[in-house]
Amino acid sequence: MSLISVGSMAFDAIETPFGKVDKIVGGANVYIAYAASYFTTPVQLVSVVGYDFEQQEMDEMKKRGVMLDGVEIVPDEKSFFWSGRYHMDMNSRDTLVTDLNVLANFKPVVPDNYQGAEFLMLGNLAPAVQLSVIKQLKTRPKLIVLDTMNFWMDIALDDLKAVMKEVDVLMVNDSEARQLSGEFSLVKAARKILGMGPKFLVIKKGEHGALLFHENHVFNAPALPLEDVFDPTGAGDTFAGGFIGYLAKTKDISFANMKTAIIVGSALASFCVEQFGPNRLKEITKEEIDERIAEFVQLVSFDIDLV
Amino acid sequence: MSLISVGSMAFDAIETPFGKVDKIVGGANVYIAYAASYFTTPVQLVSVVGYDFEQQEMDEMKKRGVMLDGVEIVPDEKSFFWSGRYHMDMNSRDTLVTDLNVLANFKPVVPDNYQGAEFLMLGNLAPAVQLSVIKQLKTRPKLIVLDTMNFWMDIALDDLKAVMKEVDVLMVNDSEARQLSGEFSLVKAARKILGMGPKFLVIKKGEHGALLFHENHVFNAPALPLEDVFDPTGAGDTFAGGFIGYLAKTKDISFANMKTAIIVGSALASFCVEQFGPNRLKEITKEEIDERIAEFVQLVSFDIDLV
Repeated sequence: MSLISVGSMAFDAIETPFGKVDKIVGGANVYIAYAASYFTTPVQLVSVVGYDFEQQEMDEMKKRGVMLDGVEIVPDEKSFFWSGRYHMDMNSRDTLVTDLNVLANFKPVVPDNYQGAEFLMLGNLAPAVQLSVIKQLKTRPKLIVLDTMNFWMDIALDDLKAVMKEVDVLMVNDSEARQLSGEFSLVKAARKILGMGPKFLVIKKGEHGALLFHENHVFNAPALPLEDVFDPTGAGDTFAGGFIGYLAKTKDISFANMKTAIIVGSALASFCVEQFGPNRLKEITKEEIDERIAEFVQLVSFDIDLV
Repeated sequence: MSLISVGSMAFDAIETPFGKVDKIVGGANVYIAYAASYFTTPVQLVSVVGYDFEQQEMDEMKKRGVMLDGVEIVPDEKSFFWSGRYHMDMNSRDTLVTDLNVLANFKPVVPDNYQGAEFLMLGNLAPAVQLSVIKQLKTRPKLIVLDTMNFWMDIALDDLKAVMKEVDVLMVNDSEARQLSGEFSLVKAARKILGMGPKFLVIKKGEHGALLFHENHVFNAPALPLEDVFDPTGAGDTFAGGFIGYLAKTKDISFANMKTAIIVGSALASFCVEQFGPNRLKEITKEEIDERIAEFVQLVSFDIDLV
């Protein structure tokens, strides 16, 4: 079941309380691609990179069934670069540098051979860019998932509202859900956001897990309590990639299966944070994923006879 | 299965974004008593009040199987008074007034007719006071649960460490677990704290639920996403009361049953926050409790075939 994913491919410089790297491959689409490729292929990427993006990284992706036909290579510009420093709590970070480079004029083009894909992942990008991808598809995918962030709510809210009308699932974190809805209670926030277009809302809460809202239903996914979070960069994108990858694999977009997909996404994200950048995502075994998911089952299981 | 509970009985003045009350009955032991009385009686209180504590409240407690033989009434002093104001997020609050009054010289006395109780709840109080209750018991209870707070870590850490050595279950919130252990990771914090005496550790995370640690096991209990949190005062004490009340009812102190007890405590706490003070806790029906617990089951249930 083919999946198109749109998002940045970049270099990051990352500083955490545990160490730093000056230059490592990153960008939402890289994390999404690695995570989703454990469950479904091809993962058809739409993105843009500069002359400096690593051929070795692209070769590694191809080996995993990731298609790069929709990745434009701009010969005389650099790839998107982001630099950030995490605080001790790992939930907050300072952005030190954002060099848009090739991303400044990104006009995504969906290749003909991607047409007919049944799943579309819109990684975090300008909402107008995300919308242009939807418009290029001749057949509407069975499921469109939208990731976004507070930055676009600040500077491109109307565009964001327009793309929200076209998607099935929206992913935001808790403070973004509050900002988008103007409601502090996440239950009230979810109700408002579900009135703005998406039929499903995922609220990511970092170390506190995630909530999935649909109609009047809610599901609470835990996060695995971790010994160490080494580098949280890309955890949200990895979550999204595992989520939509699992849905594409199982071809089931019911609320029940989305709950499972959230556990799968959370499991993948729990690997992502174990090393810098996407490194850990390149070497997970099927057995490790199964074991990690079994830990989630253990984590929330309890027996009850009603009192 | 009789249960002794030690803690304050007080008056509170509470201000939340939704309203304010100038004087309402409060104190850890009041919340614990109401919550536990849904599951087990007698609940045998040890506490101290002034001449101003309401007879009507004590009569209502007695009707529910709460014993007050261990509640000293000081004729010429006022009851403990606390006043606080909650911020919009309801997770943080400013303490405006703390008048210890009768609590300043509280020397708890365990009545003879309480001896032999199998469960002991040590509500939040000075650790030395908590320890003096344990020392008065001729037979060690089957289970001792200790609630405490950052205040005692700041001013009476050695006393707290001494009482921790005598208990089975410790309850703290996430920032307190970090303070007590000096570890940011809750997994590492839990390991250190479990080395300080208690065999079980409950870490309360407010709107994010709670974690139960025991040996190398961990259980994640969700909090019910609520439309409104009207007044969080007493939610932690109510959680503790529901927890130990359910354990006393079922007479089973295994890890498996403690997981269930945490869900029961969370359900009771979700009622507590619906109205000011302990008001809501006085009128819950068995059917409402069963329904609420069923919501928790729904909230975390998912199906998985390993991927």
